[in-house]
Amino acid sequence: MSADPNCIFCKIVAGQIPCKKVYEDEELLGFHDIHPWAPVHILLIPKQHIANLYDAQAEHNALFGRMLGLAPRLMRELGVENGFRTLINTGADGMQEVYHLHMHVMGGPRPWSKG
Amino acid sequence: MSADPNCIFCKIVAGQIPCKKVYEDEELLGFHDIHPWAPVHILLIPKQHIANLYDAQAEHNALFGRMLGLAPRLMRELGVENGFRTLINTGADGMQEVYHLHMHVMGGPRPWSKG
Repeated sequence: MSADPNCIFCKIVAGQIPCKKVYEDEELLGFHDIHPWAPVHILLIPKQHIANLYDAQAEHNALFGRMLGLAPRLMRELGVENGFRTLINTGADGMQEVYHLHMHVMGGPRPWSKG
Repeated sequence: MSADPNCIFCKIVAGQIPCKKVYEDEELLGFHDIHPWAPVHILLIPKQHIANLYDAQAEHNALFGRMLGLAPRLMRELGVENGFRTLINTGADGMQEVYHLHMHVMGGPRPWSKG
């Protein structure tokens, strides 16, 4: 599986940096964001290093589908029954901060801001 | 294909309400948001009526994967090379406004707000 030795999320996948894990399978890892924007804020990432959606290939579609399919299940498991947002930031204008593709899943009541 | 006669997005799919279309195939429709939050703001929706991610089933994962896979392709076609956000709002706390699942794809430079 491809990994980038300088990538903080690859280090989390490898267990070199700890995380508060909420989900793991062969392809995906889910953990609590260390700077939450919402009462429940997790990140769901592919274990393989994909920088962002611009770099994705058609072969990754199944993985992305599983990520979106997992989001409501994990929110329910974490007690979020009344709504959440799923957000992927891509590139500079998308305000991407870590260049390892990740989906923010943010649940619970809060004064959301648009967009 | 399931449709809800009271749903505005089902009416757009059926051609009863016009839209500025950017993409269409058998399963998906993409069109410009009428209230854009970004220089390029499209909505990508499944043609079948699925209220939101809470109502999704495992059988929909392939569709969701295609939606995320299409986002960078459509952004590039619309001239967005420097970044975009993909966002799905689910339920009241997720600030969902139309209860037909839709992905916001928002590209181009702007003062993004978090969350």
